[in-house]
Amino acid sequence: MELIRTIAEAHDLVEKIRLSGRLIGLVPTMGALHRGHLLLVDEIRDHVDVIIMSIFVNPLQFGPNEDFDRYPRTLDSDVELAETVGVDYIFCPDVSEMYAGNVKTRVVVADLPNHLCGLSRPGHFDGVTTVVTKLINILKPHIAIFGQKDMQQAIIIQKMVKDLSLDVKIMTLPTVREVDGLAMSSRNNFLSEADRHEAVKLFQSLNFAKQMIVTGERDLFLIVEGIKNFITTGNSAEIDYIGLVDTETLEDLTELKDGSSVLIALAVKFGKTRLIDNLTIKIPVFEHVV
Amino acid sequence: MELIRTIAEAHDLVEKIRLSGRLIGLVPTMGALHRGHLLLVDEIRDHVDVIIMSIFVNPLQFGPNEDFDRYPRTLDSDVELAETVGVDYIFCPDVSEMYAGNVKTRVVVADLPNHLCGLSRPGHFDGVTTVVTKLINILKPHIAIFGQKDMQQAIIIQKMVKDLSLDVKIMTLPTVREVDGLAMSSRNNFLSEADRHEAVKLFQSLNFAKQMIVTGERDLFLIVEGIKNFITTGNSAEIDYIGLVDTETLEDLTELKDGSSVLIALAVKFGKTRLIDNLTIKIPVFEHVV
Repeated sequence: MELIRTIAEAHDLVEKIRLSGRLIGLVPTMGALHRGHLLLVDEIRDHVDVIIMSIFVNPLQFGPNEDFDRYPRTLDSDVELAETVGVDYIFCPDVSEMYAGNVKTRVVVADLPNHLCGLSRPGHFDGVTTVVTKLINILKPHIAIFGQKDMQQAIIIQKMVKDLSLDVKIMTLPTVREVDGLAMSSRNNFLSEADRHEAVKLFQSLNFAKQMIVTGERDLFLIVEGIKNFITTGNSAEIDYIGLVDTETLEDLTELKDGSSVLIALAVKFGKTRLIDNLTIKIPVFEHVV
Repeated sequence: MELIRTIAEAHDLVEKIRLSGRLIGLVPTMGALHRGHLLLVDEIRDHVDVIIMSIFVNPLQFGPNEDFDRYPRTLDSDVELAETVGVDYIFCPDVSEMYAGNVKTRVVVADLPNHLCGLSRPGHFDGVTTVVTKLINILKPHIAIFGQKDMQQAIIIQKMVKDLSLDVKIMTLPTVREVDGLAMSSRNNFLSEADRHEAVKLFQSLNFAKQMIVTGERDLFLIVEGIKNFITTGNSAEIDYIGLVDTETLEDLTELKDGSSVLIALAVKFGKTRLIDNLTIKIPVFEHVV
């Protein structure tokens, strides 16, 4: 496995790979790898010849009061882990390499960021779409893969790729979870033992909402209140948002229509640590039930 | 020569060309080809193996009250002209092909558009950078070439390419002029005979300003007034702007420093037709003159 640290090296490398006719798969990460990342590599491996993982904590996607400085950087152990799952190259540029020379360009997707995480984190998704465009331009993958834990991100990137006619296929992988259901995240390491215990309620609350919906509940307010109470009862968790939104437009639903789908997404803070999770639920049709 | 009308066809084609190791040159145009466009083809030919010209009147870069509907579309004669100079492929998609499915993504460069044409045409350069990013993603050129007649456009595109790490070299070609000095433009055809006669003053006024500067004038106000009077005396031309700006940041200069350069750019309306021109002037150093 080889580490690539500059854009010029990367351009040379991928040009040679592409000239040889081999297919490139990209697994973009911010490092601090966990099993979720490794399963992204497993998923893409069957479809490509060369796997490039990028490890870059992207300052553009962090707000001024967010955890950019605190975000875990564990390159040495990331490199070891990546090697065990057969990553061929790691692209791990410095910030000064990625954003040399007073960068003034942003890739901006309208509307889709005006929901869920985008409301709590203004500018976040502009940072994501800008860095993903750069990574695609630098590494020229045939396929890039993203986790569904940040479903809004996956949806926005798909839209951006189509809108800008980027010649890359986007795959997504269902959220990988700990044994108790907590969505894997590099930020889980920040949790105190007590909060780690409580954090399992995120996924449980989504399943609780699913149960409400599949057993007939259609009142959006009651479902949101149900999730909220489920999560916050008996602990100090602070709800950032709970959204029941359209799976394509991410707009708040005003009703739950039988036979349609709803994306339930939430963000919750435990102390300084903000976690997200989501679940897409197909709303059952009870046409034969009176 | 072959016409390519869809993004999917273009992706297939350029993938094959690139796999063969041949270099692709892109000449982006809005059609209504004139000698300036053909000289862009001549200029790029020595450096590439395959020349692709794009012909696309890009609605995103026209404001609501601008001349999108009126802009000349002359595909048949464009195809003939392009063939005479050895263009290999013309990419000429419909608007519905380029912007299918409610496009929400824009490539936005900060600051540089807040000067010159960008002030008169809000959103114009966002439309330009978005379509050029798309064209580069679709046609994957090794080199793309732009005319210096729209110097602000050339500067913004260079910045965007660097910022987004697009793997393409940008060439620019000095403005090509009619015998009397008028910068070639597809919009020149809109001019009445009288206005066509007056329009020659654009380039003359730039040279008049150059003469002022190289003979020692350093008063920005006097230079702007000189240009203004030169152009508008005895006709109905309406000045949109006259800018003496930094050649890199495009910011208005507050003084003319010996040994530095100044970009003089202007836009002038003759009736409904708005023409632009510019000249970069190296300010002489008169250190031995008292």
